[in-house]
Amino acid sequence: MSFLDRIRHCNSFDRSRVIPLWAGEHRIGWLRRDNAEALRPHDRIFAIEADGARLLARGSCDEVSCAVDGVVDTLVKERRVSKWRNETFDVAPCWGAPPILRVDRGAVPFFGVRAYGVHVNGYRRVGDDYFLWIGKRAANKQTAPGKLDNMVAGGIGNGHGAAATLAKEAEEEAAVSARLIKHAVAAGALTYRMETKHGIRDDVMFVYDLEMPDDFMPSNGDGEIAGFALMPLADVLERIRTSEDFKFNVNLVILDFAVRHGVLRPEYPEYVDVANGLHRPFD
Amino acid sequence: MSFLDRIRHCNSFDRSRVIPLWAGEHRIGWLRRDNAEALRPHDRIFAIEADGARLLARGSCDEVSCAVDGVVDTLVKERRVSKWRNETFDVAPCWGAPPILRVDRGAVPFFGVRAYGVHVNGYRRVGDDYFLWIGKRAANKQTAPGKLDNMVAGGIGNGHGAAATLAKEAEEEAAVSARLIKHAVAAGALTYRMETKHGIRDDVMFVYDLEMPDDFMPSNGDGEIAGFALMPLADVLERIRTSEDFKFNVNLVILDFAVRHGVLRPEYPEYVDVANGLHRPFD
Repeated sequence: MSFLDRIRHCNSFDRSRVIPLWAGEHRIGWLRRDNAEALRPHDRIFAIEADGARLLARGSCDEVSCAVDGVVDTLVKERRVSKWRNETFDVAPCWGAPPILRVDRGAVPFFGVRAYGVHVNGYRRVGDDYFLWIGKRAANKQTAPGKLDNMVAGGIGNGHGAAATLAKEAEEEAAVSARLIKHAVAAGALTYRMETKHGIRDDVMFVYDLEMPDDFMPSNGDGEIAGFALMPLADVLERIRTSEDFKFNVNLVILDFAVRHGVLRPEYPEYVDVANGLHRPFD
Repeated sequence: MSFLDRIRHCNSFDRSRVIPLWAGEHRIGWLRRDNAEALRPHDRIFAIEADGARLLARGSCDEVSCAVDGVVDTLVKERRVSKWRNETFDVAPCWGAPPILRVDRGAVPFFGVRAYGVHVNGYRRVGDDYFLWIGKRAANKQTAPGKLDNMVAGGIGNGHGAAATLAKEAEEEAAVSARLIKHAVAAGALTYRMETKHGIRDDVMFVYDLEMPDDFMPSNGDGEIAGFALMPLADVLERIRTSEDFKFNVNLVILDFAVRHGVLRPEYPEYVDVANGLHRPFD
């Protein structure tokens, strides 16, 4: 296995297996063909054609969201959406634009709408060596139970920006105070598009670096992380290369950290493909 | 104008205006259709078809390079290649692979082969504020004369790796010693594909950050830079946004610096498109 395999795994999206989901002139999602078929009975809310689906529901963001929620209710009963997460994500034509609707987090992959999250590399530097605070996800997490994770990571729920999500997740997941998280440095946006059991993940990850005080030990407050360990970055990279211990998308965040901090360098033959592969084009 | 316009300008490549250039199973370049037509008389070296061109010359890297140089000689006379640069670039299936041939730098855009370069952000940090050492390109430079540039930048010639090119250019362009340039941190690879007067630039830029000592003042030794100034990053960004003062691809390097160091943040509406747009997919 190689670093590139980790990137390929997160980019398993196959255009031929999906149709675009349109809201007016904006493509807001990617529907896998089986998911599109499942929407056919809901023909007052969605129009399904061979080469694309259209959201028919009209009105305010609240009204459109309510109409789509009615469909999600059926999809949950049909087990096409695993469960209500009772947390909604904004669906907008692009980052920063007003939302057209809000979708329950559980239904995000079904519709293949773009989702945004924050990921924090909590690191220490000793001489030329980097260490990362790595969390182990709780065994009862729906996604990637027991896998290794960034110190702090979380999806951006409706109406919350990146900065507010960062502060909230830092406090809940790792007991990082509002005062400390202010020192986190925004360091870029990574993108990938992946087919999962339930549909398509079309994700943007805002990455932050936070140099951690020597005497700080993260501790979890929301039950989502079973424990933390401070690991040498070199060991983390070797584990990424040779195992599937890390959550699929966390591999990308850590590879990006290694690229940005000169731990992976141009002399590495896969360098160009790794550095470039952490970003995929929008369409 | 906006930051995104700078990125779009460097990505003016239009697939419909070119055909791929193949060496065996590897696509090694993009030939604009007029350039492809100009190769027709050289039918022992290149085979031109409607949907692609093939390099016919066979043999060692030296032999293939020699055959193609014969063609370049004619292209220079025909003014399709502006001049011999007497510096050759490796042409390989991908970064790190053995070269199939070497092409004179002057002919690189004609064939649309991928080129690699190094760019150094020479910076100082005072409190929360960043400053960049910016060079002004000499008035007699063939490309982008008089435009503003990174402190150090240069193409990677045949057989030289990134690190050796970095050290050589740092010394020649800005009198940065071998001892100081060792502190440069490799920070990623940016990619763009642009149509120019002579063909296609398909470029990979290896970016490095170098924190500069307070008392260091770069000085040019090879006549390529007319002078240097230390500019506040905020001013540099405003100038990038509102003017064409910077060399086309240097805009990208500085936007990447601003993204990686949290000067441009997710709260900026174009953030996702800027951060993502600095990387374009390979094919």
